[in-house]
Amino acid sequence: MATKLIIAIVQDKDSNRLSDIFVDNNIRATKLSTTGGFLQSGNTTFMIGIEEERVDDALALIKDASHARDEFMTPPVNMDVSMEGTTAFPVKVQVGGATVFVLPVDKFTHF
Amino acid sequence: MATKLIIAIVQDKDSNRLSDIFVDNNIRATKLSTTGGFLQSGNTTFMIGIEEERVDDALALIKDASHARDEFMTPPVNMDVSMEGTTAFPVKVQVGGATVFVLPVDKFTHF
Amino acid sequence: MATKLIIAIVQDKDSNRLSDIFVDNNIRATKLSTTGGFLQSGNTTFMIGIEEERVDDALALIKDASHARDEFMTPPVNMDVSMEGTTAFPVKVQVGGATVFVLPVDKFTHF
Ligand code: NI
Ligand code: NI
Ligand code: NI
Repeated sequence: MATKLIIAIVQDKDSNRLSDIFVDNNIRATKLSTTGGFLQSGNTTFMIGIEEERVDDALALIKDASHARDEFMTPPVNMDVSMEGTTAFPVKVQVGGATVFVLPVDKFTHF
Repeated sequence: MATKLIIAIVQDKDSNRLSDIFVDNNIRATKLSTTGGFLQSGNTTFMIGIEEERVDDALALIKDASHARDEFMTPPVNMDVSMEGTTAFPVKVQVGGATVFVLPVDKFTHF
Repeated sequence: MATKLIIAIVQDKDSNRLSDIFVDNNIRATKLSTTGGFLQSGNTTFMIGIEEERVDDALALIKDASHARDEFMTPPVNMDVSMEGTTAFPVKVQVGGATVFVLPVDKFTHF
């Protein structure tokens, strides 16, 4: 039974939910919090040692929790503005997105 | 002579000692300090490019320096307590622990 | 067409320039900012999923942007010094340097 290493880089905003999902599915993930990166906000790297047979299931969970999608956000209202009746309109922004590598592993162990 | 990549994630509290051990054993490790993660305190990721013949020795060093073990810690005494004679009892906590991957490598180089 | 994973650890001071170079050369890199490490200042880890045919080109770009080299730096003058005419002499320091792994990949995907 071969082991694989999944390296998944997701946005910080999706990482807590994804951690919970891994726990619920009995997938042991090592979370490396990182700041910056090519994603606008901070990103989180998960490293998962997993049996080859379960790789596709894990990828489906990652995709479900962290894929790129549009969200509508309302920009903060500038409190300095003297005009009353100012309205902040929601704008569409893309959030989420995951970059995922599946690597062959010679050995995976815990001490 | 094949090269392997060892990725070892250890607790911050063990990382300085492990760095020293790598130096003493002529193992060149790249240390990526990270914060957070599945371990309670911060963790540190080491990446080590090493000849296949030396992998087992390196794993033994990592195990020795960072394996999970129990320690007795005395909780800090609350200075606010007015009762004299208060005693802080040591409690047993698990510390350390390492997650280790050994990966095949096509190429390893320094510039 | 096989995909490879390049893991490149470079100094922070070289990372922005290298990011630009990757963009100019249509190489999609995931940047993991990290602090500390075996390099004196902070270092940055790039993870790049790339076709096997382009690996050598990518390595040449990394080498060019981040290889170890000497630079002359002028130490800051101590403003507290009362002697006039004090001169800060430039000193030679080594900067840059990259550690690079090329790994086989079973699967590389974006969600
Ligand atoms: Ni969706
Ligand atoms: Ni022990
Ligand atoms: Ni040069």
